[in-house]
Amino acid sequence: MIITELIEKKRDGGEMTAEELEFLIGGLVNKEVEDCQMSAFMMAVCCNGMTDREISDLTMTMMRSGDTVDLSDLPGVKVDKHSTGGVGDTTTLVTAPLVAACGGTVAKMSGRGLAHSGGTLDKLESVPGINVEQPLERFEQIVRETGIAVIGQSANLVPADKKMYALRDVTGTVKSIPLIASSIMSKKLAAGADAIVLDVKTGNGAFMNTLDDSRKLARQMVRIGDDLGRKTVAIITDMNRPLGMAIGNGLEMKEAIDVLQGRIPLTDPLVSVCLTLGAQMLLLSKLAETREEAEEKLRDALVSGRGFMKLKSMLKAMGGDTRYVDEPELLVRTSRIIPVYPVKSGYIGSIDAKQLGLAACLLGAGRLRKEDSVDPAVGILMNKRYGDRISENEPYAYLYVNNEDRLDEALALIEAAVSISDEAPAEMPLVYDIIE
Amino acid sequence: MIITELIEKKRDGGEMTAEELEFLIGGLVNKEVEDCQMSAFMMAVCCNGMTDREISDLTMTMMRSGDTVDLSDLPGVKVDKHSTGGVGDTTTLVTAPLVAACGGTVAKMSGRGLAHSGGTLDKLESVPGINVEQPLERFEQIVRETGIAVIGQSANLVPADKKMYALRDVTGTVKSIPLIASSIMSKKLAAGADAIVLDVKTGNGAFMNTLDDSRKLARQMVRIGDDLGRKTVAIITDMNRPLGMAIGNGLEMKEAIDVLQGRIPLTDPLVSVCLTLGAQMLLLSKLAETREEAEEKLRDALVSGRGFMKLKSMLKAMGGDTRYVDEPELLVRTSRIIPVYPVKSGYIGSIDAKQLGLAACLLGAGRLRKEDSVDPAVGILMNKRYGDRISENEPYAYLYVNNEDRLDEALALIEAAVSISDEAPAEMPLVYDIIE
Repeated sequence: MIITELIEKKRDGGEMTAEELEFLIGGLVNKEVEDCQMSAFMMAVCCNGMTDREISDLTMTMMRSGDTVDLSDLPGVKVDKHSTGGVGDTTTLVTAPLVAACGGTVAKMSGRGLAHSGGTLDKLESVPGINVEQPLERFEQIVRETGIAVIGQSANLVPADKKMYALRDVTGTVKSIPLIASSIMSKKLAAGADAIVLDVKTGNGAFMNTLDDSRKLARQMVRIGDDLGRKTVAIITDMNRPLGMAIGNGLEMKEAIDVLQGRIPLTDPLVSVCLTLGAQMLLLSKLAETREEAEEKLRDALVSGRGFMKLKSMLKAMGGDTRYVDEPELLVRTSRIIPVYPVKSGYIGSIDAKQLGLAACLLGAGRLRKEDSVDPAVGILMNKRYGDRISENEPYAYLYVNNEDRLDEALALIEAAVSISDEAPAEMPLVYDIIE
Repeated sequence: MIITELIEKKRDGGEMTAEELEFLIGGLVNKEVEDCQMSAFMMAVCCNGMTDREISDLTMTMMRSGDTVDLSDLPGVKVDKHSTGGVGDTTTLVTAPLVAACGGTVAKMSGRGLAHSGGTLDKLESVPGINVEQPLERFEQIVRETGIAVIGQSANLVPADKKMYALRDVTGTVKSIPLIASSIMSKKLAAGADAIVLDVKTGNGAFMNTLDDSRKLARQMVRIGDDLGRKTVAIITDMNRPLGMAIGNGLEMKEAIDVLQGRIPLTDPLVSVCLTLGAQMLLLSKLAETREEAEEKLRDALVSGRGFMKLKSMLKAMGGDTRYVDEPELLVRTSRIIPVYPVKSGYIGSIDAKQLGLAACLLGAGRLRKEDSVDPAVGILMNKRYGDRISENEPYAYLYVNNEDRLDEALALIEAAVSISDEAPAEMPLVYDIIE
């Protein structure tokens, strides 16, 4: 096969065969296909799309480009959960322990935050001592002992995706449903779970901005999962606001602990989405018959404190200092806490979640470039939500700050992101759809 | 400006501003824009096209990326000629001396052959001693003394195109009218001629296969030239067969000499196309009032031998050994000449010119990769043309061979490229259109 002819085929709207995709992806990994060639190919995919069959074949080829994890020695249905990335979205740290507390087996590989979105690995690392780079044997051992482990992706898992993602990031080829779906699903499939629950975020703080695009992405990923023999469900959830109140790694870890210790009401949006996600995980794990039964079990695990104990056991097993778990205030000690007051009274009429995520990055909570380091304690703690009444005398947010270099920029972003209206805005759903 | 945002703009079908194109092209030359980024951008151009304004701005930006030649010291209208590339197409070596013999000033920079198509520099180098890399001062001096010089493109002429072309060649982004038009016209404009005659080839041996695409490319280039102040004319000529009988560097140089020495009738297709091209060059140079007058002058220059003397003077001025010009048989001395007989009698019903060009490459006449070297003496000499009656007793082609390593492959290509029909095929026009 001739590389340029394969690229030209996709340029002209053709459908690639499995062998042709294997030639390109295999060639990328062993350096027979040059970066410039893969970039041109991926742009052709952005412009001309892919058929369902092509996307499944691409996903399989990517999955097979490196090691795959075999979890078959572990008992029960191994269930994984993945979020497409949002702001103030600490669902994994709440949901995974609750599912484990209900008897589920959660063996999960997570990522770091990029751009405005947070990443579970960064949040875990807000607990001093924790090591997210566990060898696979230790990973399996932790799962066996506690029912739950969340670690970083092993080095040689889907190397094709690592190269493709690095290229997409600099070549304007991120926003493509075939490329996003195959990137996520190849990693989920390689990580070895039997069942996968996908949290597809939609809205101004998500990578997919419209409900229509989010639905297309969700359907595509569910189709790929089912096609390749893993039971997959996608839940489309709102990201037109931060999901929780905390944006920043220690702040979000603290929020997860607060939820699991019962300090946040069960009607809270974060808790509500976690129960929805967790219920699907239990259903796929065959640990409940109905959504209602599943949610009841999860609520019970939360209220009883069993969920909290699962989180603590896992953090301890990974080397975390559990004093920080018992006293989560230790996670968010910064040199200053700066209240942000509204310029006028009214209602929070809209929130640009992406801009809040970027503001948190400017404070040091996330990475604007891959090589940036993060400060685990800093970030934004919202004091008011979308639709809340606010007055000039009460802060609607607190900034947790150590380095003030870009504080003014962060403040300007936050003020532009939160718009104040005279009337209360219409309610927005938290969960748009469940796609099975 | 952020590079990925510019790429995304074209990915989503947007129109680039002049400043944005300058940022990308300037960045490519000074290495701020990576190869993978330019490749993705060019693929987006392939898929989504460019407006006329964008193509003009792109051409200007590319032209300004390096040195430009100033020919204003030379007397008269400086006229250039460019072919989009074909097989057995030695029009420059015939037309340029004839135009010079009629008083025209031809200061031309040419290229090398790539893929199946021949290149004038390679043909010039079939004459021992010739140096196509002349400094600009010497180039101007030769033009001043003889009215004609054809040299290689100076090193820093349109460096952006050099990088873009090398990338397009490996990333499946060659076939794009905006990219082809800007590549050709940026070089023509930088080379400093006042007027440009473009020979746009169409058919199976051309880079543009359909008449419709060839017309679009021709119109686009004429528009750019006029837009940027150079009088430009394009002639669309047939490339559904080799234009001349010779395919190979020495063979084509010999064919040009044979034409200029009057050994080939004026009705020959190669001569006919050369007269059409030359007439447009004389018209743009204001050395004739009508096409008829211009062609009459050119025929006179040919029959009188003045055209031949111009070619000889130029080759001599560039260091060429003129014994090879006086005895052109010396140019094509190979260890073997292999006749190719048809498998049955009939008519030559179609010829795949590209496959013949590739067969000549396999014999060593051209480059399959940029780093290949060429053998000036080898190639294919056709003995029959499209539409000719052929019989099993008479060769329709002769292969001039030194290295027989890939002879069988070459023969197979030739046999597949020439189809024999029982009836004489319909005549095909040589010139489809003249676009002013």
